[in-house]
Amino acid sequence: MSSAVETLSNGQFQTVYNVFSFALASMLFTALFLLVSQGRVLPRYRQALVVSATVCGIAAYHYFRIINSFNEGFAPTAIGGDYTLTPFGFNEAYRYVDWLLTVPLLLLETIAVLALPRATRASLLTKLIPASVLMIALGYPGEVAIDTLPKMLWGAASTIPFLYILYVLFVELTKSLGRQPAEVAASVKRLRILLIATWGVYPISYLFPVFGLDGADAFVLRQVGYSVADVLAKCLYGLVIYKIARMKSAADDP
Amino acid sequence: MSSAVETLSNGQFQTVYNVFSFALASMLFTALFLLVSQGRVLPRYRQALVVSATVCGIAAYHYFRIINSFNEGFAPTAIGGDYTLTPFGFNEAYRYVDWLLTVPLLLLETIAVLALPRATRASLLTKLIPASVLMIALGYPGEVAIDTLPKMLWGAASTIPFLYILYVLFVELTKSLGRQPAEVAASVKRLRILLIATWGVYPISYLFPVFGLDGADAFVLRQVGYSVADVLAKCLYGLVIYKIARMKSAADDP
Amino acid sequence: MSSAVETLSNGQFQTVYNVFSFALASMLFTALFLLVSQGRVLPRYRQALVVSATVCGIAAYHYFRIINSFNEGFAPTAIGGDYTLTPFGFNEAYRYVDWLLTVPLLLLETIAVLALPRATRASLLTKLIPASVLMIALGYPGEVAIDTLPKMLWGAASTIPFLYILYVLFVELTKSLGRQPAEVAASVKRLRILLIATWGVYPISYLFPVFGLDGADAFVLRQVGYSVADVLAKCLYGLVIYKIARMKSAADDP
Amino acid sequence: MSSAVETLSNGQFQTVYNVFSFALASMLFTALFLLVSQGRVLPRYRQALVVSATVCGIAAYHYFRIINSFNEGFAPTAIGGDYTLTPFGFNEAYRYVDWLLTVPLLLLETIAVLALPRATRASLLTKLIPASVLMIALGYPGEVAIDTLPKMLWGAASTIPFLYILYVLFVELTKSLGRQPAEVAASVKRLRILLIATWGVYPISYLFPVFGLDGADAFVLRQVGYSVADVLAKCLYGLVIYKIARMKSAADDP
Amino acid sequence: MSSAVETLSNGQFQTVYNVFSFALASMLFTALFLLVSQGRVLPRYRQALVVSATVCGIAAYHYFRIINSFNEGFAPTAIGGDYTLTPFGFNEAYRYVDWLLTVPLLLLETIAVLALPRATRASLLTKLIPASVLMIALGYPGEVAIDTLPKMLWGAASTIPFLYILYVLFVELTKSLGRQPAEVAASVKRLRILLIATWGVYPISYLFPVFGLDGADAFVLRQVGYSVADVLAKCLYGLVIYKIARMKSAADDP
Ligand SMILES: CC1=C(/C=C/C(C)=C/C=C/C(C)=C/C=O)C(C)(C)CCC1
Ligand SMILES: CC1=C(/C=C/C(C)=C/C=C/C(C)=C/C=O)C(C)(C)CCC1
Ligand SMILES: CC1=C(/C=C/C(C)=C/C=C/C(C)=C/C=O)C(C)(C)CCC1
Ligand SMILES: CC1=C(/C=C/C(C)=C/C=C/C(C)=C/C=O)C(C)(C)CCC1
Ligand SMILES: CC1=C(/C=C/C(C)=C/C=C/C(C)=C/C=O)C(C)(C)CCC1
Ligand code: NA
Ligand code: NA
Ligand code: NA
Ligand code: NA
Ligand code: NA
Ligand code: NA
Ligand code: NA
Ligand code: NA
Ligand code: NA
Ligand code: NA
Repeated sequence: MSSAVETLSNGQFQTVYNVFSFALASMLFTALFLLVSQGRVLPRYRQALVVSATVCGIAAYHYFRIINSFNEGFAPTAIGGDYTLTPFGFNEAYRYVDWLLTVPLLLLETIAVLALPRATRASLLTKLIPASVLMIALGYPGEVAIDTLPKMLWGAASTIPFLYILYVLFVELTKSLGRQPAEVAASVKRLRILLIATWGVYPISYLFPVFGLDGADAFVLRQVGYSVADVLAKCLYGLVIYKIARMKSAADDP
Repeated sequence: MSSAVETLSNGQFQTVYNVFSFALASMLFTALFLLVSQGRVLPRYRQALVVSATVCGIAAYHYFRIINSFNEGFAPTAIGGDYTLTPFGFNEAYRYVDWLLTVPLLLLETIAVLALPRATRASLLTKLIPASVLMIALGYPGEVAIDTLPKMLWGAASTIPFLYILYVLFVELTKSLGRQPAEVAASVKRLRILLIATWGVYPISYLFPVFGLDGADAFVLRQVGYSVADVLAKCLYGLVIYKIARMKSAADDP
Repeated sequence: MSSAVETLSNGQFQTVYNVFSFALASMLFTALFLLVSQGRVLPRYRQALVVSATVCGIAAYHYFRIINSFNEGFAPTAIGGDYTLTPFGFNEAYRYVDWLLTVPLLLLETIAVLALPRATRASLLTKLIPASVLMIALGYPGEVAIDTLPKMLWGAASTIPFLYILYVLFVELTKSLGRQPAEVAASVKRLRILLIATWGVYPISYLFPVFGLDGADAFVLRQVGYSVADVLAKCLYGLVIYKIARMKSAADDP
Repeated sequence: MSSAVETLSNGQFQTVYNVFSFALASMLFTALFLLVSQGRVLPRYRQALVVSATVCGIAAYHYFRIINSFNEGFAPTAIGGDYTLTPFGFNEAYRYVDWLLTVPLLLLETIAVLALPRATRASLLTKLIPASVLMIALGYPGEVAIDTLPKMLWGAASTIPFLYILYVLFVELTKSLGRQPAEVAASVKRLRILLIATWGVYPISYLFPVFGLDGADAFVLRQVGYSVADVLAKCLYGLVIYKIARMKSAADDP
Repeated sequence: MSSAVETLSNGQFQTVYNVFSFALASMLFTALFLLVSQGRVLPRYRQALVVSATVCGIAAYHYFRIINSFNEGFAPTAIGGDYTLTPFGFNEAYRYVDWLLTVPLLLLETIAVLALPRATRASLLTKLIPASVLMIALGYPGEVAIDTLPKMLWGAASTIPFLYILYVLFVELTKSLGRQPAEVAASVKRLRILLIATWGVYPISYLFPVFGLDGADAFVLRQVGYSVADVLAKCLYGLVIYKIARMKSAADDP
């Protein structure tokens, strides 16, 4: 999984490094905030907060590894000078291992908010989770491919389960609006937009290397794109779930 | 305990490294999840969650050590190039020390779920725990043996207590089905299959070096096999125990 | 973002290093103190303590990174001798990433204390938070500029949203005095002065490099100024919020 | 306190290293287990669990330091080759500093279990704790002595307070049997044997270097002996105290 | 702030290193013990335990830094050989930064135990805390001065606020004896002696370099003196406060 990029300018290295650090801080403190705030929602909504905190916790672990690999993989040549790739290389696989763990948990969390009867919930999960594993498994070979053609083929294959998941979630979230108090419905709508908007950024970031950009610039845009998408899809998403749980708690027990 | 493997390709090193990291993340966050979710089951079922969390916690500590030893034991030669063994070597013993602590705890956890009268429980443990220590002690010399013959002899010896343990657990789990509410019985059956399926992977992984494969490939398959088996036998197993405890709590106090 | 400073005397390095360490210790233990003291205020005031603890926690993370970057970026030449800049350089961006996360949270915390009706609170936040992001974004290019002119231009631009935020907060805090018990009003007044005094130190520290001082001295004054301002604006501010929450708890439920 | 041992074979180094790691894992997770299980015993027995957890916690800290010093003190020469002493050396003092803190706490813990009237408890502690400090202080010079004679003399001196402590504890534990419910008495008897058996291993390990063995073998046996004794005298001892507290809780409030 | 000492014998280095490690372990586990034991005292006495835990926590952080600086500042020359100062040097300032944070908190803690009316408490604090900051600020230049004269002058200046603080605390503690239950008064008397005895050790340690001793010996005595004083003035002091809180809880609610 060696990255095609062998040299980054000082500015490019610092930009990617600081966005990684911003993502790590966001993940770590969203996870701690959600854990510490459990007492402020009714017991039956705490599971959703714990799952959100676990998603952000796992991502914090992976950004800790990504920063260390980035530091080990690129070494400075001179004060203010370029950074060049070292034999350790930069491990692109951390993200995909992270998604393998966090995407199924995010699906679980979203479905928990829909307050569906147990049977429907189980059938939804048995369809969506395998689909998400397939999406990630199909995407990885394209991610580490150097040439454009294999990148496009694997990307297209991965987009099929991707669209299926978004379609099913969108339909279910929409159907759930009727079953929620008005105030909560507004937040569920925001959750729906957040889902489509943030999950859409991943395939865009994936495609930067084929937009005819210089290798290093494509690398920077891809890493920044994935990291910003992660903060929105994990931290912001988790905080919206927290807000929904707060409102539902107030509604159930004024 | 030096490993016979002296060189890994870049891909082989990254594969093993990322599977180790996946295992560490799964262990760490399953342990934290089980600890934080204690409040969601009745007091008398919390001990089983705490023991499960301890099993995953101990495994997380050992995978942290395994990753560091793997990083210290193999050094990259060039960008995208092979990794070669260093004088520090890769410590194969961490797994066996881990099993020495976690297998007895897993036995304790499984028997706790059977809700047996105290006397039967004590007699079962005094037979199964020494058998598990024997299984691990007999397996280690074979693990670090370079030649096939000693590996087969020690492996065969270790399989005797192994089969005894699986047989006793299978019989006891089956007998307990009658004593559980229907819903719980379904999960106990799943626990039974999980036990046989996952514990079976360890001897298979152990045997990879003798399947006439190239040394490095056998090493990769063995490490990946052990790690995946660990995630199933510790994390998935602990989450099934959590589900059983949730159902029993609901049944006892609707 | 390489710093113009290439050499620090032994005393200058130790001064900056020890002020950074003082800030890290203050942040870390204020965060822990606020978390552990939640039980001593009524449930409805705990959110403010948790947000304060998160602000100090995030700052503790960034000072941990700042100290490591300072240590990596400047290397000693001889016993008691100068420290010279290394190719790793000193990462000035950590502060701005920290502000990007903590300033919006501080705004949220201050407005929570005002106990405003939900609608006014929401409208205030939608104005103040974007303004604070703008202030920080406009300030950064000036921070890393080597020449005085760009530093002054970017600084002036950043001061506009800065003055807007302080004006709005000052007016709202003053209006809230009437709605608070007398004892609390005294503390809210102290909060108001603390806000103006501490936030004012940041632009002063920013301007040190243009006061015609020697580069290294300006660097030291700037780093010490920012760090002292951080301890006051985050730790002291959080402890005053704690005191207000304690008094309000006593008033509500004597 | 430099150790007389300058070279360890690869096997000797791995054996000592893995036993140290086993001890660290046992200490860390016994401490966490005891802390998390406080809720399962009545409030008046929680102090004993907290003290046990502190004993195991302090020992976990020292084994963390011992492993680092062992790694820093011995460096590998070749793949599968010997390890040779470095100028950093291996710090033998960590154990004695650990005992200085944990032995008094263990005495406190044991006497708490006896449920003696406050006055007798105080007088016992004022005799036993100074005796334990004397035992450790007299033992250390012998520990780091290279020649046999000083090692024997200091060892003999240290054995006097050692025997006094064991005698007093044995008598008091025996007298307490009458005051405990039958079931608890069985465990107190086990505690008594555990105390004698495990504390006895320390002087035996101390004497290995004088049993005419080769220096390196004596070093390995001494380190393994001390570590195994620590796990029994701290972890197993703490878990037996936990069991007694559980039984007493059940007896007091069925 | 480079230390005048350039060389330490192997024994001198190990002695200072092990005393630092003893202090770090005592601080860390006293802080954790006090935090975990909050439930064993009435709510109104928990603030004193939390403040004591914070004092020990801050000191644990600084001893972690002191040990790293000592390790980085002195390098071994040969097995069992001397340690020589490196260009990194040993940071003497950590202690003074620690005192700047912990002494005011210790004053706060001691006054909280006196259970004074709020007004008297506030006026006492506004006099004692500035005096303590002055004591530390005046002491530091003397600490790092190489020659005896400046060391004596700054030391004398610092002793004025030092004596003032001890005098005021002694008088207030004595006056409070009448207001406490008999049993508590005994402990408050012990607190009073502990205060005078331990705070007195600091100026004595400070003066070691001027007692005409060899530089290295003075350095060892000074570091050991400060560390032992810290353990008594922070850990032992905190545990006596815990005992007083326990007794007051029992007295208020038998
Ligand atoms: C469509 C597509 C992709 C989609 C990835 C997604 C949708 C990732 C979502 C990650 C999340 C939500 C992480 C945190 O919770 C890939 C694999 C990049 C490969 C190219 C095509
Ligand atoms: C039969 C057999 C083995 C079995 C090992 C097992 C069954 C390990 C189980 C580990 C678990 C369950 C760990 C986590 O909880 C060995 C020793 C490889 C040696 C070869 C023969
Ligand atoms: C006006 C101005 C600035 C103001 C910065 C401020 C006001 C920062 C506040 C930070 C806080 C409060 C952090 C912790 O909570 C800059 C960006 C230095 C650039 C120059 C002009
Ligand atoms: C008699 C004797 C010794 C005894 C040591 C003991 C009894 C240590 C106990 C340690 C414990 C219980 C630690 C953990 O809790 C020494 C000092 C080796 C010196 C030689 C003679
Ligand atoms: C009188 C005097 C001193 C006193 C220092 C003291 C009294 C320090 C107390 C520290 C504590 C109590 C720390 C932990 O809580 C100095 C500064 C050494 C300088 C020389 C004169
Ligand atoms: Na780097
Ligand atoms: Na790479
Ligand atoms: Na490596
Ligand atoms: Na090896
Ligand atoms: Na440095
Ligand atoms: Na820089
Ligand atoms: Na040594
Ligand atoms: Na080593
Ligand atoms: Na050193
Ligand atoms: Na120094």
